[in-house]
Amino acid sequence: MTASTGGPDGSTEQDVPLALEDAAYREAVIDLLGAISYGEISAFERLVEDGTLAPSLEDKVAVATMATAEFARVAGLHARIAELGADPFAAMAPFREAIDRFHAHTAPADWFEGLIKAYVGDGLADDFYREIAAYLDATTRDLVLASLEDTGHAAFVVDRVRAAIAADPRLGGRLALWGRRLMGEALTQAQRVAAERDALSALLAGGVDRPGLDLAAIGRMFARLTERHAERMAELGLAH
Amino acid sequence: MTASTGGPDGSTEQDVPLALEDAAYREAVIDLLGAISYGEISAFERLVEDGTLAPSLEDKVAVATMATAEFARVAGLHARIAELGADPFAAMAPFREAIDRFHAHTAPADWFEGLIKAYVGDGLADDFYREIAAYLDATTRDLVLASLEDTGHAAFVVDRVRAAIAADPRLGGRLALWGRRLMGEALTQAQRVAAERDALSALLAGGVDRPGLDLAAIGRMFARLTERHAERMAELGLAH
Repeated sequence: MTASTGGPDGSTEQDVPLALEDAAYREAVIDLLGAISYGEISAFERLVEDGTLAPSLEDKVAVATMATAEFARVAGLHARIAELGADPFAAMAPFREAIDRFHAHTAPADWFEGLIKAYVGDGLADDFYREIAAYLDATTRDLVLASLEDTGHAAFVVDRVRAAIAADPRLGGRLALWGRRLMGEALTQAQRVAAERDALSALLAGGVDRPGLDLAAIGRMFARLTERHAERMAELGLAH
Repeated sequence: MTASTGGPDGSTEQDVPLALEDAAYREAVIDLLGAISYGEISAFERLVEDGTLAPSLEDKVAVATMATAEFARVAGLHARIAELGADPFAAMAPFREAIDRFHAHTAPADWFEGLIKAYVGDGLADDFYREIAAYLDATTRDLVLASLEDTGHAAFVVDRVRAAIAADPRLGGRLALWGRRLMGEALTQAQRVAAERDALSALLAGGVDRPGLDLAAIGRMFARLTERHAERMAELGLAH
């Protein structure tokens, strides 16, 4: 799926070169793919590390399967960055500090905090990238959406966390606080990235031939992200 | 590839049921697949952990790619254990202690020790399983051999280690000692497993309709394993 293989109606063929002629747009797409790539690599590494806390080998294998599914997406994102003429490792570099800091500030104290971080943290990141995807050319949008598909392990986390809270209701209070802390830390690091990466921020504001978001629309986007976070916490059996 | 889907010459169809009617053989195969599975899971986890020592993000991604290739083999091995009527997690349980002890006694002190452990340790285990595969029914043999295929990253390790030794020749002496320690620890743990798992040991001695190894043949097998270990050390630029 490259720019040269357009659909029969020619829409893809038109869409990609037009958008990518805009240097600021191209830079923003490379930033976005770099951020998602490093996020996946980082999530992979932390998930495997959290798996060492697993109470059983079955749980360890379930978490390792989630982790390898995350990592498997990196190759496609890197290939697209290279197609756009950039180096994948250079593209990831600007996001290492913020993503590493997010993980350093949210090191799980136990197995359940690790599970919730995987579920809530990845869910939040995925929702955010899905919102951004609406402003992308078709080829990049398809790639980003494919990289966000549920790896099918959300049910595993919900099952384990609900069972643990049923067995020890006090756990619910601690994990609800943990969920709020994850959300707060994610917003802090996202704001830092937005302040530093002009091209990425400008993407949301629109550009040549592309509609953007006004302040009210950005507000509505954040309201949607917060609402979905609350839904995930409720699914886990945790009051928001 | 199950017992009911034999080839046109009927050889696979005959082969599998005959061998698996022998309860001791079946038990040995389940043991073997359990040991390989836990070995892959364990190698995956240690490789990702060693990746945190990587000097660059490129090196981290290369090692994570090796690790996920190891992990991807587990599902097929588990499916075969289930086909044979056993629980994959129960099948792995008897090997956890020896494999965990191997890793605890060979925790790499730095990035290069981790690379050599991945290359030399996996190479040794793969050679050993390949020797055993000669005594298996065709279906199990194919599965075991497929699970041992080089994930194509040996060249990465050889390149990195040779470059490091060229830059600092004293490193070569330390890493050569490390290679010998890995070999010694692997033999210690393998002997412990052989002493405890009668069915697995008996596999090498042969059984109904299957030829086995006499003591001289076992001696020759160990000579071959040692020779291949020495070849790998030489490839790394390390005197044995």
